[in-house]
Amino acid sequence: MAHDDSYFRPLGGSELPRFAGRSTFMRLPLIDDPSEVDIALIGLPWDSGSTNRAGQRHGPREIRNNSTMMRLVHQASRIAPYDLCRIADLGDVPVNPIDIRDTLERATAFYRRVHQAGAAPLTAGGDHLGTLPILRGLARDEPMALVQFDAHSDTNDTYFGDNPYTHGTPFRRAIEEGLLDPRRIIQIGIRGSLYEASDLDWAHEQGIRVLEIEEYFDLGPDKVVEEIWRVVGDTPTYVTFDIDALDPVYAPGTGTPEIGGYSTREAQRMIRGLRGLNLVGADVMEVAPPFDSSGITALAGASLMFELLCVLADAVAKRR
Amino acid sequence: MAHDDSYFRPLGGSELPRFAGRSTFMRLPLIDDPSEVDIALIGLPWDSGSTNRAGQRHGPREIRNNSTMMRLVHQASRIAPYDLCRIADLGDVPVNPIDIRDTLERATAFYRRVHQAGAAPLTAGGDHLGTLPILRGLARDEPMALVQFDAHSDTNDTYFGDNPYTHGTPFRRAIEEGLLDPRRIIQIGIRGSLYEASDLDWAHEQGIRVLEIEEYFDLGPDKVVEEIWRVVGDTPTYVTFDIDALDPVYAPGTGTPEIGGYSTREAQRMIRGLRGLNLVGADVMEVAPPFDSSGITALAGASLMFELLCVLADAVAKRR
Amino acid sequence: MAHDDSYFRPLGGSELPRFAGRSTFMRLPLIDDPSEVDIALIGLPWDSGSTNRAGQRHGPREIRNNSTMMRLVHQASRIAPYDLCRIADLGDVPVNPIDIRDTLERATAFYRRVHQAGAAPLTAGGDHLGTLPILRGLARDEPMALVQFDAHSDTNDTYFGDNPYTHGTPFRRAIEEGLLDPRRIIQIGIRGSLYEASDLDWAHEQGIRVLEIEEYFDLGPDKVVEEIWRVVGDTPTYVTFDIDALDPVYAPGTGTPEIGGYSTREAQRMIRGLRGLNLVGADVMEVAPPFDSSGITALAGASLMFELLCVLADAVAKRR
Amino acid sequence: MAHDDSYFRPLGGSELPRFAGRSTFMRLPLIDDPSEVDIALIGLPWDSGSTNRAGQRHGPREIRNNSTMMRLVHQASRIAPYDLCRIADLGDVPVNPIDIRDTLERATAFYRRVHQAGAAPLTAGGDHLGTLPILRGLARDEPMALVQFDAHSDTNDTYFGDNPYTHGTPFRRAIEEGLLDPRRIIQIGIRGSLYEASDLDWAHEQGIRVLEIEEYFDLGPDKVVEEIWRVVGDTPTYVTFDIDALDPVYAPGTGTPEIGGYSTREAQRMIRGLRGLNLVGADVMEVAPPFDSSGITALAGASLMFELLCVLADAVAKRR
Amino acid sequence: MAHDDSYFRPLGGSELPRFAGRSTFMRLPLIDDPSEVDIALIGLPWDSGSTNRAGQRHGPREIRNNSTMMRLVHQASRIAPYDLCRIADLGDVPVNPIDIRDTLERATAFYRRVHQAGAAPLTAGGDHLGTLPILRGLARDEPMALVQFDAHSDTNDTYFGDNPYTHGTPFRRAIEEGLLDPRRIIQIGIRGSLYEASDLDWAHEQGIRVLEIEEYFDLGPDKVVEEIWRVVGDTPTYVTFDIDALDPVYAPGTGTPEIGGYSTREAQRMIRGLRGLNLVGADVMEVAPPFDSSGITALAGASLMFELLCVLADAVAKRR
Amino acid sequence: MAHDDSYFRPLGGSELPRFAGRSTFMRLPLIDDPSEVDIALIGLPWDSGSTNRAGQRHGPREIRNNSTMMRLVHQASRIAPYDLCRIADLGDVPVNPIDIRDTLERATAFYRRVHQAGAAPLTAGGDHLGTLPILRGLARDEPMALVQFDAHSDTNDTYFGDNPYTHGTPFRRAIEEGLLDPRRIIQIGIRGSLYEASDLDWAHEQGIRVLEIEEYFDLGPDKVVEEIWRVVGDTPTYVTFDIDALDPVYAPGTGTPEIGGYSTREAQRMIRGLRGLNLVGADVMEVAPPFDSSGITALAGASLMFELLCVLADAVAKRR
Repeated sequence: MAHDDSYFRPLGGSELPRFAGRSTFMRLPLIDDPSEVDIALIGLPWDSGSTNRAGQRHGPREIRNNSTMMRLVHQASRIAPYDLCRIADLGDVPVNPIDIRDTLERATAFYRRVHQAGAAPLTAGGDHLGTLPILRGLARDEPMALVQFDAHSDTNDTYFGDNPYTHGTPFRRAIEEGLLDPRRIIQIGIRGSLYEASDLDWAHEQGIRVLEIEEYFDLGPDKVVEEIWRVVGDTPTYVTFDIDALDPVYAPGTGTPEIGGYSTREAQRMIRGLRGLNLVGADVMEVAPPFDSSGITALAGASLMFELLCVLADAVAKRR
Repeated sequence: MAHDDSYFRPLGGSELPRFAGRSTFMRLPLIDDPSEVDIALIGLPWDSGSTNRAGQRHGPREIRNNSTMMRLVHQASRIAPYDLCRIADLGDVPVNPIDIRDTLERATAFYRRVHQAGAAPLTAGGDHLGTLPILRGLARDEPMALVQFDAHSDTNDTYFGDNPYTHGTPFRRAIEEGLLDPRRIIQIGIRGSLYEASDLDWAHEQGIRVLEIEEYFDLGPDKVVEEIWRVVGDTPTYVTFDIDALDPVYAPGTGTPEIGGYSTREAQRMIRGLRGLNLVGADVMEVAPPFDSSGITALAGASLMFELLCVLADAVAKRR
Repeated sequence: MAHDDSYFRPLGGSELPRFAGRSTFMRLPLIDDPSEVDIALIGLPWDSGSTNRAGQRHGPREIRNNSTMMRLVHQASRIAPYDLCRIADLGDVPVNPIDIRDTLERATAFYRRVHQAGAAPLTAGGDHLGTLPILRGLARDEPMALVQFDAHSDTNDTYFGDNPYTHGTPFRRAIEEGLLDPRRIIQIGIRGSLYEASDLDWAHEQGIRVLEIEEYFDLGPDKVVEEIWRVVGDTPTYVTFDIDALDPVYAPGTGTPEIGGYSTREAQRMIRGLRGLNLVGADVMEVAPPFDSSGITALAGASLMFELLCVLADAVAKRR
Repeated sequence: MAHDDSYFRPLGGSELPRFAGRSTFMRLPLIDDPSEVDIALIGLPWDSGSTNRAGQRHGPREIRNNSTMMRLVHQASRIAPYDLCRIADLGDVPVNPIDIRDTLERATAFYRRVHQAGAAPLTAGGDHLGTLPILRGLARDEPMALVQFDAHSDTNDTYFGDNPYTHGTPFRRAIEEGLLDPRRIIQIGIRGSLYEASDLDWAHEQGIRVLEIEEYFDLGPDKVVEEIWRVVGDTPTYVTFDIDALDPVYAPGTGTPEIGGYSTREAQRMIRGLRGLNLVGADVMEVAPPFDSSGITALAGASLMFELLCVLADAVAKRR
Repeated sequence: MAHDDSYFRPLGGSELPRFAGRSTFMRLPLIDDPSEVDIALIGLPWDSGSTNRAGQRHGPREIRNNSTMMRLVHQASRIAPYDLCRIADLGDVPVNPIDIRDTLERATAFYRRVHQAGAAPLTAGGDHLGTLPILRGLARDEPMALVQFDAHSDTNDTYFGDNPYTHGTPFRRAIEEGLLDPRRIIQIGIRGSLYEASDLDWAHEQGIRVLEIEEYFDLGPDKVVEEIWRVVGDTPTYVTFDIDALDPVYAPGTGTPEIGGYSTREAQRMIRGLRGLNLVGADVMEVAPPFDSSGITALAGASLMFELLCVLADAVAKRR
Repeated sequence: MAHDDSYFRPLGGSELPRFAGRSTFMRLPLIDDPSEVDIALIGLPWDSGSTNRAGQRHGPREIRNNSTMMRLVHQASRIAPYDLCRIADLGDVPVNPIDIRDTLERATAFYRRVHQAGAAPLTAGGDHLGTLPILRGLARDEPMALVQFDAHSDTNDTYFGDNPYTHGTPFRRAIEEGLLDPRRIIQIGIRGSLYEASDLDWAHEQGIRVLEIEEYFDLGPDKVVEEIWRVVGDTPTYVTFDIDALDPVYAPGTGTPEIGGYSTREAQRMIRGLRGLNLVGADVMEVAPPFDSSGITALAGASLMFELLCVLADAVAKRR
């Protein structure tokens, strides 16, 4: 390898204040070759799948900016991800903003390369359609499990006629393609008015565990964690966090906000509860900076990305 | 009637994306004649009663804009209001921004016409003084009950000398005029520093059930719903939601924010608990877009308006 | 026809204040049938052609909001467009935000219908790719002339490989398709750093009159108007105003701002100079509200739309 | 007198940084008794006359905040106002936000007291109706002259029926009441679309010198100054600066912005040209902070207030 | 004394609306001599200790602006501070923004003068380093107790080499100097990623009661209040409230936000629980208006300042 | 050398859209060794010298973000800087935000290293004090000439007592240290109210050519360029552009805005006129993103940086 372990450390706050220096993810080095790392932090600056308000194309840059405020060790779990794994910023997926299918191909190839190099991807999006090429890139012999924090099920079929690829359809496509095992999917925080009463029927028929927000608040985050463990078991598991899972006060900067969600604190508690699962990758999607005048959505995105990084690093280290 | 039932449907998201097309309330048709509908959605763009920060005159337009993100069926209750009732946008009350008494007369006449046509009004304000002409327009033989979500009691007597009409006085006037039965009024979430210790004495003397925020948090939303039912019984009931009832993080865009309020989720839970009451109208007041840089106040206003629409449609349908 | 002339008047400020009432273009009635009008005001809420910052999909709604501040008579020319022509808001083109070619077809059909009904379209965009289907819809036996206010020539060939349809290519496509006569095109205000020194070679080769910003400032707006008249003559002429032609202080809310442009006053002066040309339609494109925190870009868009409406109404009336 | 001359000095930047210390106008002392000063800086936090966007009630506070950045000596003229006159902040007029006529009386009494004490008022508004009670308070045997920088003539008759008092009528009222001599009024920068072609007829009939924006740009600021001198002569002259006279890029935070105005630099040049006139008072009106996201309107307001202070102090000193 | 008791009252809302009149703390008189009051409200506009995002220098002015919305009597406790104590705004500490040690000396001298005059200080900051000179000014024979609401312990040693004075070090310095008894310190809400796992070791070694956010949520605010009482006992106690203790949705406008904090309601409940402690002073620090686009951080700061004022006035009155 | 010429190219827009990929200056590679380049682009994220509003510490990152919109070739001059020189982003100067003298030393050492490596620095600040260590680092046998675009002369002596280092003093220090020849200094655009009438006396006594804004507008940019050439001649010349030289509408996001400045277009024209001078370095200072809500200040900063890069590259190439 080109660099020794000491290279893969965030730039220290005593070397340069946090508003200075490289604004890569977590102030890590920016590299090209995924085989150098255990975990690759990746930007997916793409919002062509958005049918409502867009702007998620600017998400990765703003999440990077805010990630420079993250330090080295997790406060509650004391996980020190940079002691456990080699981690770096792998830059952005080379998207084509005016051609959805071309970008799907480019992104799938990008993630396949990461996966084949043995690195686990942790992505900042980008609208939620972006999770589809990630899953395609991570495809293995058996379908994966999915923990989905989200206000919307994103298992619709088509939009505006027969268009199969939007931010409302990725998990339907992934199930159809055998990338995900629907009985190993749990969706947490589903809410918002419906197009029609049958909106969630397909998801239920597939066996997806749809945890609507009312049930979420009845159970509370700790019992929800138990339910996550029950559903995904030890299957290789991908975690996707649509920032609109959070209440809009925590994430005003997103495309399709829905009032009445959970808090960042509750999200932290649930993500911390994923420690020990067989995690193979994760993402934070749908941060839309043009609608984030106070910047707190990007801050939440960066902070949750660090939370995910800690449990992912723990899983990667344990698999070695 | 001029239109058949199929006319009174929101513009579908598959016909036009939600950022396109008419920005009426809920993307419904805009009509003039209240006799065509069961429920009339109305804007009251007026803030002349505001003694502090104003800007509520812009509330209806921004709530309309955000209401285009509402879909057709309520997620938790599965109420489908457009299947139950004919509903349309009746436009704005023809306010006179420089003459309070003239506007009170114009608005009272407007709501009287709606009421006499047999339509139940659901209004987006405007400052809270606007609820007074609504109640005047809805006047019937017996005084009405009132469910008031609010940080302030709004039962002061006069301001700046002997001015009887401000956003701090509407419910005192309505009680004096026999429009409301004070023993059938419940105010939920009252808080904020006081002018003097006796501020709420008049309200208590009238028999209003003043549920201050401390008691609210002791009881929790479910017990508060029980208390609402106990107070209003089967009296014809009007519901007024001052957006400043919410904590300022959910509603920064309002005239007189008070920290320490409840959340939109709790508000949703309480509004859903109104299903089954004898509801005759409702409003969402005090959204002030010029102070709403992130837009979440208008989103909350539109979303709570949809919540109110669902329970109101249920009540209207049941009365038929 | 369904309505008499008195119907096609903006809602008066004495009936409802300007922040109230319908937020259609200029507070005009919203109709469906283009055959009822001489000039159709149309929204094209579409930004899929944008390769840089987007958000133009929200342009039409915000321009409509700001257009409610326009009154009835032009201050300098005393043109009273609503006395000259029947004018109404025809709503938004039914775009498909996730399929460029589908939207091109839908939009072309929409404008063809308008054109065939005998109405001249005045459009608020939307990214600049939107002008291509407008021109296709307006296609007639002979190619049209074009007056293009813009920071960019928008005559590039392809992007991200061989993609022919972006906001940087519409006028190359329109020339290739014979919709425009390149020797009857004048582009005013071209500036900004170049991809390569040859960026404008194709435009020059076609005979387009490229008036770069340096020449603009040397000539001044009055001489530029003379040049416009010289180039387009009495050919049927379309006018396209990319809001990024303006200096970014006048139009921060756009996708690709370039410092050093002209002012709204200069734009007004040039548009007023178009009176007497054989105008067949016009548009104001690239207003991107998510980047318009102060709202002045949408205000400029609505105001320039009124300027264009006056000269277009004058032309339409004269052709009768 | 209660204080000696040294008291009437702005708090120095070396005593406290400009973001600290009292945020009075120009960091001057706040006093109650106008007889202590030659020039009284006054806030008129009132917007009840606004028929469009409001928020001017917050103008005085934000102008005070920005005025703390003003230093002691005028850069171009070297006028040192605090060496020439006793100047202080007299606080705000005790407005009644819910009663226009009551406020007119309160404000008139306030300014009469100032005038009778021998102090010249320099006011920060507030909507333009506020200039009417100022003029009433300054009333003397002969009508005054008026230099009005404005986008609108503000000489309409009535609004919404027969309401005589709005921000569109103050100068008609003042002329009718004999406070102003219409042949000694010059209005500079009038523009914007018209309600009807006859909007300005009354003003012209009275003999007001209406300098529309087109003529303004033809003449340029220096010739306009000559015209001002010609019109007002040595009559006691009041100066009113409606911030919407400026182009909206210089003053987005106002109620009725109109594109195509002049710049702050041009305004400075014209105000400096007033030196030598027989000035008796001045104001800066229509700053509306809720629409001023970047704060530059309040900065312009404070800066032009300092410009006016310099020429007013020069006039006051010369009259002694 | 120069003034009688009636002088020390907030300007009433019936004399001037809350957006008008002096924008001192709570609309109280601004005085120079601390011996006239029992409690002195003080601004400390200083952010030189900030190593991350700054802007706290603007905190006092914005907190003053928002404090004009506070009324006279506490809603829950019915404490009427202005009936109990003489209270006034003492203006701002004369900071030197370009010399940390000079400002430390100036501020220490300022607070010593306040303390020796017998007034208890209630301060609005300013970054958290500002609490150090306050504590120095309040120094007495015995070390004080401290109730610290904060996301960060602020007990680091040095930064950027051997710099001992930053917003991350004040309480280490105060303990070293014998100003605080570490066993009488309780820190509530500590969270955020760590520089290294040992970050809090020094604090623990000193005997500080570090209540990390996880324990906070396990206990809830009422049990935390009990813990506060247990730790500080009847020792003279200072209360410092770093606004970043709150979740960023309640306080986006701060230098080092950390997701997952408590709410303003919980903060209110804890502050109210301090009633009866032997309080000698308090502060609200780290409000940074340039990052507070919606203004809710300054509102929270002003509101919590009023909460602290009530319990402090109660303590001061009881000691008499 | 480690890299061949092809390495030193901006990331192309066809590889990654401009909102994606590295957000270095101009999307150039980020390197550590100045000996690899002819021109080093450097961030100086430091605002400790600011005595008024600060936030310039965030300038470099936002200028980098906006610089990703710059393309490769200058539109007017056709200068292609990356064809002429090796250029890269050298990262940020390792500032110490809490110790002015330490940062002065660190920055001087940083620039000395750049200078000794033979690279010409082009810096994005940072407050204007930052230009002092740059000049120290560039020190050579003979004093340099200076072209200073600025609203303020920045030749004050001391602040807050005897503090010699603030953003108001760098050029006095540089003259005293023999770094600059005062008779070879020209300051363009000086304006704003003065502390006292003698503010500029020292500058005039040294022989600095102070071109106040009134003279600027009398001469116009072309004559000003002639004056620049006359003053600096062929002396090695440094160019400093304080963004507050621009009118606040072009640069609201700065610490000490002064109305009545010039435009970006005029600035472009003057910078282009520097082509042919013996340029040795340049900077763009005082961009303060927290006050730049619309982002246009950072856009102006990045665009002027590109303008400066073109003339600097031309000078560097000619010297070879």
